[in-house]
Amino acid sequence: MTYSIAILGASGYTGAELIRLIAGHSSMKIKALGANSKAGQTIAQVFPHLRHLALPTLLQIDEIDFANIDLCFCALPHKTSQEVIARLPRSLRIVDLSADFRLRDPAAYKQWYGNDHAAAEIQKEAVYGLTEFYRDEIRSARLVAGTGCNAATGQYMLRPLIADGLVDLDDIILDLKCAVSGAGRSLKENLLHAELSEGYNAYAVGGTHRHLGEFDQEFSALAGRPVRVQFTPHLIPANRGILATAYVKGDAQAIHKSFETAYSNEPFLEVLPFGEVPGTRHIRGSNFCHIGVSQDRISGRTIIVGVLDNLTKGSSGQALQNANLMLGIEETEGLMMAPLFP
Amino acid sequence: MTYSIAILGASGYTGAELIRLIAGHSSMKIKALGANSKAGQTIAQVFPHLRHLALPTLLQIDEIDFANIDLCFCALPHKTSQEVIARLPRSLRIVDLSADFRLRDPAAYKQWYGNDHAAAEIQKEAVYGLTEFYRDEIRSARLVAGTGCNAATGQYMLRPLIADGLVDLDDIILDLKCAVSGAGRSLKENLLHAELSEGYNAYAVGGTHRHLGEFDQEFSALAGRPVRVQFTPHLIPANRGILATAYVKGDAQAIHKSFETAYSNEPFLEVLPFGEVPGTRHIRGSNFCHIGVSQDRISGRTIIVGVLDNLTKGSSGQALQNANLMLGIEETEGLMMAPLFP
Amino acid sequence: MTYSIAILGASGYTGAELIRLIAGHSSMKIKALGANSKAGQTIAQVFPHLRHLALPTLLQIDEIDFANIDLCFCALPHKTSQEVIARLPRSLRIVDLSADFRLRDPAAYKQWYGNDHAAAEIQKEAVYGLTEFYRDEIRSARLVAGTGCNAATGQYMLRPLIADGLVDLDDIILDLKCAVSGAGRSLKENLLHAELSEGYNAYAVGGTHRHLGEFDQEFSALAGRPVRVQFTPHLIPANRGILATAYVKGDAQAIHKSFETAYSNEPFLEVLPFGEVPGTRHIRGSNFCHIGVSQDRISGRTIIVGVLDNLTKGSSGQALQNANLMLGIEETEGLMMAPLFP
Amino acid sequence: MTYSIAILGASGYTGAELIRLIAGHSSMKIKALGANSKAGQTIAQVFPHLRHLALPTLLQIDEIDFANIDLCFCALPHKTSQEVIARLPRSLRIVDLSADFRLRDPAAYKQWYGNDHAAAEIQKEAVYGLTEFYRDEIRSARLVAGTGCNAATGQYMLRPLIADGLVDLDDIILDLKCAVSGAGRSLKENLLHAELSEGYNAYAVGGTHRHLGEFDQEFSALAGRPVRVQFTPHLIPANRGILATAYVKGDAQAIHKSFETAYSNEPFLEVLPFGEVPGTRHIRGSNFCHIGVSQDRISGRTIIVGVLDNLTKGSSGQALQNANLMLGIEETEGLMMAPLFP
Repeated sequence: MTYSIAILGASGYTGAELIRLIAGHSSMKIKALGANSKAGQTIAQVFPHLRHLALPTLLQIDEIDFANIDLCFCALPHKTSQEVIARLPRSLRIVDLSADFRLRDPAAYKQWYGNDHAAAEIQKEAVYGLTEFYRDEIRSARLVAGTGCNAATGQYMLRPLIADGLVDLDDIILDLKCAVSGAGRSLKENLLHAELSEGYNAYAVGGTHRHLGEFDQEFSALAGRPVRVQFTPHLIPANRGILATAYVKGDAQAIHKSFETAYSNEPFLEVLPFGEVPGTRHIRGSNFCHIGVSQDRISGRTIIVGVLDNLTKGSSGQALQNANLMLGIEETEGLMMAPLFP
Repeated sequence: MTYSIAILGASGYTGAELIRLIAGHSSMKIKALGANSKAGQTIAQVFPHLRHLALPTLLQIDEIDFANIDLCFCALPHKTSQEVIARLPRSLRIVDLSADFRLRDPAAYKQWYGNDHAAAEIQKEAVYGLTEFYRDEIRSARLVAGTGCNAATGQYMLRPLIADGLVDLDDIILDLKCAVSGAGRSLKENLLHAELSEGYNAYAVGGTHRHLGEFDQEFSALAGRPVRVQFTPHLIPANRGILATAYVKGDAQAIHKSFETAYSNEPFLEVLPFGEVPGTRHIRGSNFCHIGVSQDRISGRTIIVGVLDNLTKGSSGQALQNANLMLGIEETEGLMMAPLFP
Repeated sequence: MTYSIAILGASGYTGAELIRLIAGHSSMKIKALGANSKAGQTIAQVFPHLRHLALPTLLQIDEIDFANIDLCFCALPHKTSQEVIARLPRSLRIVDLSADFRLRDPAAYKQWYGNDHAAAEIQKEAVYGLTEFYRDEIRSARLVAGTGCNAATGQYMLRPLIADGLVDLDDIILDLKCAVSGAGRSLKENLLHAELSEGYNAYAVGGTHRHLGEFDQEFSALAGRPVRVQFTPHLIPANRGILATAYVKGDAQAIHKSFETAYSNEPFLEVLPFGEVPGTRHIRGSNFCHIGVSQDRISGRTIIVGVLDNLTKGSSGQALQNANLMLGIEETEGLMMAPLFP
Repeated sequence: MTYSIAILGASGYTGAELIRLIAGHSSMKIKALGANSKAGQTIAQVFPHLRHLALPTLLQIDEIDFANIDLCFCALPHKTSQEVIARLPRSLRIVDLSADFRLRDPAAYKQWYGNDHAAAEIQKEAVYGLTEFYRDEIRSARLVAGTGCNAATGQYMLRPLIADGLVDLDDIILDLKCAVSGAGRSLKENLLHAELSEGYNAYAVGGTHRHLGEFDQEFSALAGRPVRVQFTPHLIPANRGILATAYVKGDAQAIHKSFETAYSNEPFLEVLPFGEVPGTRHIRGSNFCHIGVSQDRISGRTIIVGVLDNLTKGSSGQALQNANLMLGIEETEGLMMAPLFP
C-alpha cells in the first residue's frame, strides 16, 4: 500500500529533509507541497538538489486539497503552525515539526513562547513525539508534536538516568553545541557564512532557551517532582549536528548500564562502549543517536556525551519515524541510510 | 538473488563510501573487508559512522577467501592495486577504483605514473569504467577500471561536444575545483584542517595532473586525432565535490542541445536549462552529475559548468553502477538517494 | 602630524576593515563614524571585535561635522555613495570604496549599473584607485575611486602583459574564485552558512559581472584598442580571499620576466619564482598580492595565478594605501602587517 | 634599542605566530631561526605567507650562535624542549612555549607527562608565564614557562573567583571548545580537513587532559587547599580560538564585580557588560581575552564564558608579552593589533 503525503513548509530545511527521506521510502508518495512564500515554483527552483525527483509544484496551503491525503507533515514556523493546523480537516493525521504543540500546559506555553496558544483545544489531542518513549501513544495519535532538536538530544541522554533515580536531580548541567541548520533558513546577520564560519559562541545563556520548557515538562513528569536543569547552547560552524555534554552526579558504571538496558532494542540509539565518546561526524545525515558515558577523575561525577543530526533524528527523521508508526508501517522504513562521511 | 561482495581497501574514503552505498542495496551483501593496515579491527573502530552495520572484521587481503565472492571492489592505492589484482583469482569479477587499469597504452601509463605496469596482461582485459559511454562493454567485463574523479567530470562535460564536432579541439580549457576528500585519507601537511580550511590554491598547473592521461586517451579516440586539453585543478576547502568550468569555442545553443540529446535517457546526468549553473551543494552525497551551458558575451565562446561528488559519481557510486551492470542488476539500484543539503 | 579621518559606512565589512587598519596607523585618528542604519550604537555593539578601541559613537551621516576632517573614506553601497558624496564639502579629500566613480564613461556606467549617474560632474574629478598604476594622479587627487576587488586582482595579473604586448588580446580567460566577504554583509539566502559552506558554484557566467566594466575600460586604454576578456567568478566557502587563474596565449618566460620588471619595486606585489603557484591562505588579512606564472604543456600557452585579500588589497587596504599617498604619508604606513596563518 | 631574537621551532604554528608578531615589533629583530626538520630552507619555503619578510634561513639548532642573542623563544615540542634548553647558555633569557617547565612539582610533571623530567634543576628557575598574575616574577626571570592555551583560558575565567572566595571550590566545571591549530602541525588522521571539518567531538573526557596539571597547581596554590576542577575539551572545526564555559556555584553579580576589579587595568583582558557573552570571532588573531558573566535561572548558579586565540594570547602572544617584560620593553608592544573579522 502507498500512502499519500502532504508537506506544509516545503521550502525550509526540515521540509527539504522530509522530501529527501520520503524519496527513499517504499510506501509513501508526496502528493502535495505547500509553501506560501514560494507557491508556484517547482522544487528544482527552490531546492536544486532535489531536481531529479518528480514532485508536484509548490502551492499556497489554502490551495491544497487534503481529501485524499493520508498524513500531513507541518514544517512551518512556530505560531504559524497552530494557525494552519486549526484550519486543517479534523480527521487528518498530522505530524507537526514546530514547537506549537509540545507543551501540554498552556501557561508553560505562554511562559516560553510569549503568546496565548491559538489552538489550545487541538493541543489536548497532541502526543509528544519522542518516539522511543511515546511509541504506543504515537501509534494511535492523530496529531504528533515533534520535539525540539536540542530537547531530543538532552532527553536521550538523561531520561533513563532520571527514570532509574541514578543522578542528583538538582545538579544537572547540559552544555550543548549545535550546528547552524538548527536555526533554519532565516535571514539573520549572525547566520551569514562570513559571520559564523571560523567562530563560535554561546547564546541564550542562563536558562532562557525555549527548549527548556520541554526539559522541565518531561523531566519533572518522569521524576514525579520539579526538575530544573542548567542548559547552555553554543553555535558551532558546521551545518548539521548536535553534540551535548552532560555533567551529572551519579555512578558512571550504573549510568552506562542504565543506557544499555533502556536502549538495547532501539534501532537508532547506539550506546558506545564505556569510556568512548561520539562525534557529530558519525551521525551526519542519518537517524542515529550515539551516546557515550565516561567517569570523571572526581569520584561520583559522570560525563555523558550524546550526538544526533538536528535535521534528521532531531526533526524530520523523527517525524518520519512517528509517521511510520501512525500509518502502521515498519518504524525504520526510509530511515536506515548510513551517515555521510566524510 | 543476493550477491556476495568483497571490498579491498576498506579503511579509505572510497572504501567507506562503497560500504555506505551497499548498505542500502537490495541484492548485495558484504562478505569480506580487506585493509592490511587495519586488519583485525572492526568497522566501528575504523569508521564509527558505520557502527550500526553488521559487517565482517577487517582482514589482511591474503586472508580473504574469494571462493564464494561474486564481485570484488578494489579501493586500494595506485600501484598497490595492480599488484593485488594480479594475485586474485582470474575468474573473479573486479571493479578497480585505482588508476592502475585506466590507460590502455603501457607507454602512456609509464609516462603519467612513472613506473612500468606490473600487470600489463591483465590491463588488456580492463574496460574503462565511464558507465554511460562503455555500458555494453562493462556488462560483459570481468575487470572494470574506474575512472579518475576529475577525469569523469571533464568527460561528462566534453564528450558529446567532441563526438558531435561542435568545438575547436585545439582550444579547450578545463578549470577544475575539487574538494579535499579526492586526495584520500593520506597524512599530508597541506591536507590538515588548519592548512586547508579558509584557503584555496591551484596545483599541478601546466598540464602535469595524471588525469590528463585519461583525457588524452579518451578525447583523442573520440575525435580520431590527438586532442590535448588545458587542465588546471584547484583545491577548495570543502570535503566533497568537483566543479569544473570549461571554456570552449563553439555555439552555445548547439552545445546545449547536444547535451540534451546525449543525456536524455541518463538517470544520473542532469542537463540544466540553458544559462543555469550548477553548484556542488546540489549533488553532495549523491550519484548525480549536473551540467549547465552558458553563452559568453563574446560570440562563439561557450562556458560549460559541471558538478559531481568525487566520492560517489566520481568513484564509489560509479563503481557500484558498473557492478550492477556486471551482475545483471538494475543499473540504478542502491544509487538513487537524494543529495544531502544543507 | 596626525590626520583626522571619517569613515562613512562603518557598519559594513570594508568599514570594519578600515577601522582595523587605521587602529595600527601612526598618523591617522578616526574622528567620525557614519552608519545610518546603526546610528547611535557604539562600535562594540556593531563590531564586538573592535571593542578595545576608543572610537566615536556611530552617527547619521548628516550629523557629521566635516569641518576638521582631513580625509573621508566612503564605504557605502553602490548608488548610495554617489548621492552622499554629492552632498559632502567639495574640498574634502575622499577615498570612495564603492563602484560609483570607477567608470569614466557615463554610458559604460549606465550599461553595467543600470541607472544614470547622479553625480556625473564629480565623476570627472575621480582618479581610478589602482595604486601601482595611478600613483601620481592619486597623490594629487581629491577623489579616488577604489577599484573592484576582482578588478584589482585581474589587473595585477594582466596589465604588464597587455602593456608589453605579450599576449593575444582576443583570447584572455580569467577564471576567478572569490570568498564570501566580497558580497558584503547583505542578508541573502545564498550567503547563509548553511547554504554556502561545503559547496561552491559559478555565478554571473558569460560576461555579466559588473567588474567587467573596469576590465574593459582599463585594458582597452592600455592596449589602445578594444579588449574584451572572458571572466567567470566562482563563490568559494571561505571568508577572505580572491584567487584568479588566467589563461593566455603568450610565452611564459617572457611573461614572468615582465612581471618581475614591472613589480620589482612594489612593496605589496610579490612575483613568485617561475612555476610556483600562490594560495589565498598566504595573503589573508594582509595587503599583499602574490602572482605565479606557469608554462602549460601546450607550447605558447601560459597560466597565471594571482591572489589577494578582497577586504584588504582588494578594497580597504588599497583605500588606505591611496589615502597615504593623498596625505603625503609613507605609502606603506599601517599596511605592512603579516598575513594571518593558519 | 633593538633586541636580537632567536626562535627555536620556527616551522610550527606557534613559531610562525611569533614571527608574525615580531615582524610588527618596534624593538626586536629576529637573528636566528631554528628548525631541525626543515634546516636549510628559507622561510618562504616553510611559510609562504611570510615570504615578504627578510629573515635568516632556518638552521639546525646546534648551528645557532647564541652569543649575541638577547632572548630566545623555544617553540619546540614537549620533552624536546627540556633537552634543548638544558644545552643552551645558562645566561640566555628564554621564553619556553612548551609544557616542559610549567609544573613546579616533579611528581606532578611525571604524573601528567609520563616521564621523569630531564632538566629538573632548570625547572626551579622557571617562572609560570601567566603574565597578569606573575608580572613581577616575569620581569626578573631568566626562564619563563608559557602556559597551556586551555590552561590560560580557564585561569583567566576562574582565578579572581577563587582568590576572592566567591565560588564553591568543589563544584567547578569547565567545558572547553578549542580550534584545531591548538593541536599543532602534526600529521594525525583526526586533524585532516576531511575528518575534522563539519564535525566536532569531545576528547580527553573525564579529567585526563594534561592542562589539568596546571589547573591543579595554580588553583590549589591560590585557594590554599587542593582544588580539582572538572574539565572537558572539545575539538571544533575552526582554526583559531578557544571558548570555555564555566559552571560555578556563586553569586553572578559578585563574580562579575570581581572580574571588573581584577582586570580593570589589564590591557588585554576585556570584561563584557553583565549578561553579555563573547565569541571567538571577536578575538581571532589578537592578544585579547573576552570574558562574560551570566546568571542562571537557578539562583546561586553562574555561567562564565571566556574566549581567546590559542595561538596568540594562548601561546605566542603571551610569550611576546612576557618577553617584553623581561627586556624592559612596554608590555603591549607588538601586541595591540585588532582581531581579524570576518
